[in-house]
Amino acid sequence: MIARLVGDAAGVMSGGVLIGPGDDAAVWQPPPHRAVVVTQDALVEGEDFRREWITPHQLGRRCLAVALSDLAAMGASAAWCTATLCAPAETVLDDVLALALGLREEAEATGCRLVGGDLSGIRGPLVVDVCAGGSVEPERALRRGAGRVGDVLAVTGTLGGAAAGLRALFGRRPPAAAPAQVDAWVETWRRPRARLIEGRRLAALGVRCAGDLSDGLLVDAERTAAASGCRAELRLEQVPLAPGLRTAFPDAWGELALGGGEDFELLLAAPRPLLERIALDWPPELAPITPVGVLREGSGVSLYADGAPLPLPRVLSRHFA
Amino acid sequence: MIARLVGDAAGVMSGGVLIGPGDDAAVWQPPPHRAVVVTQDALVEGEDFRREWITPHQLGRRCLAVALSDLAAMGASAAWCTATLCAPAETVLDDVLALALGLREEAEATGCRLVGGDLSGIRGPLVVDVCAGGSVEPERALRRGAGRVGDVLAVTGTLGGAAAGLRALFGRRPPAAAPAQVDAWVETWRRPRARLIEGRRLAALGVRCAGDLSDGLLVDAERTAAASGCRAELRLEQVPLAPGLRTAFPDAWGELALGGGEDFELLLAAPRPLLERIALDWPPELAPITPVGVLREGSGVSLYADGAPLPLPRVLSRHFA
Repeated sequence: MIARLVGDAAGVMSGGVLIGPGDDAAVWQPPPHRAVVVTQDALVEGEDFRREWITPHQLGRRCLAVALSDLAAMGASAAWCTATLCAPAETVLDDVLALALGLREEAEATGCRLVGGDLSGIRGPLVVDVCAGGSVEPERALRRGAGRVGDVLAVTGTLGGAAAGLRALFGRRPPAAAPAQVDAWVETWRRPRARLIEGRRLAALGVRCAGDLSDGLLVDAERTAAASGCRAELRLEQVPLAPGLRTAFPDAWGELALGGGEDFELLLAAPRPLLERIALDWPPELAPITPVGVLREGSGVSLYADGAPLPLPRVLSRHFA
Repeated sequence: MIARLVGDAAGVMSGGVLIGPGDDAAVWQPPPHRAVVVTQDALVEGEDFRREWITPHQLGRRCLAVALSDLAAMGASAAWCTATLCAPAETVLDDVLALALGLREEAEATGCRLVGGDLSGIRGPLVVDVCAGGSVEPERALRRGAGRVGDVLAVTGTLGGAAAGLRALFGRRPPAAAPAQVDAWVETWRRPRARLIEGRRLAALGVRCAGDLSDGLLVDAERTAAASGCRAELRLEQVPLAPGLRTAFPDAWGELALGGGEDFELLLAAPRPLLERIALDWPPELAPITPVGVLREGSGVSLYADGAPLPLPRVLSRHFA
């Protein structure tokens, strides 16, 4: 059963996978001179998603992307993943297979292999728990705590789209937004992209400090600042907003962009000259890098709009329970 | 919170762990010339355990031991683990901390480090899902499919104790058994030992074929035989029984010993001369190795008692749901 879910065990192994699914454990040969990076992330029905919001296939892709976002935030390459599925008895086999297919497709799209996992019943909600592994040159691993006073804080992509999508899934569609716009936000929530290529490129070009925005800019900027022994100063007018966000949510766009973590973008800190050099030939097909603030002496996070201090908005939690 | 659960992030890293808990992902440098071995195993309340059967601390130890058993079955060393805990809202913090302490203690006892994980709410049963990693010389990895016709099948330790303990936990205590004996079986179920040292020693001495008995001797012998393109011939009178099993369960001891997988012993297949050499200086402090059958041409599994064929008993499933 597990073998069927993870695919053809007898198939050609690639990416250093020496033993795939079907034995007691998987075996993988990392590239020489690289260290192994591992992370684990669970998505729990009723906490992280509802079944009517996402198809099993999309859920499979999403749960791997969420785990891979942590590898991206380390500047690592993805190589393998394992997944546990706890499925209630009424789960139909087609849904289990669709979820596994989603996992495998996301793995293929990101250069990693689904090499094993566990399948269990559960008298409760669906749980998908993914462990993802990859490799990095140890001295190039992006650290939360490598920021320094004076470093510019910057993010990849745009923020707030996934939070707007989640709000629409909860039935709170903003009246001013076009249906296609709402669909795009929902798609942003359903289908996060781990910024693996961006993370690796940043690490290769000399950036040392990054993390992913799994809990939103405000929370993660504070986390990065704390790990770096600094204060994060954020400038609201610089935050790159998801298309249509400001118009559709005239009162809530700031909260969505600062508190919505499910975009799974990266937050980095780097000296300004380095960031400027990186911007000079940043490939246009990658998620753009936008400065959003600076690391200062002190601790905590402070927010400014056009130079004036703002009170911190109440932020959304990733878990809506 | 996660940092508190996994321990002191600023502590001295050991066993090749370069970055422990607290960053986006953990980083581990495997020893040179070794491949990485990974496995994932979930324990779900109501499927794999009930709360009244096991304390949170014991559950923490147990869930890591279950995952490590897969590494043992590959002949690997354990190096790191990550764990996801899905805990219902009514879970008290002390129980979460006790579970994490159990995980850390089992990690310390087996030479690995708890380096990360995820913590989630759940509107349902408690779920603990562990990913464990380690390393092996790639050419020495123990394979399910490396058995050959004529190889002797052998197991570590004794079988049936955990199944007898599980039966007692279900309230079916055999009237003939002394309470201390029943307690010992229950302890066998609660506190499995991954046969990591035994697996590594077998691999180092030239054994090529092994797997763990997570689903019981009958099921796992068939699995090993199938992977090796052979038929497994088991001899019931040779199966090493947990102490007191035969007396206490005059009708069910065979079923318990053949079907109870939760002992987490190893099943290996090796040429008889090799096994005999290994037996000559097998350290007495390790789980003993006992021949239980042989691999023959054909497929499937057949069972003999004192030379006479026996019908296969209905086996217990690991999952009692």
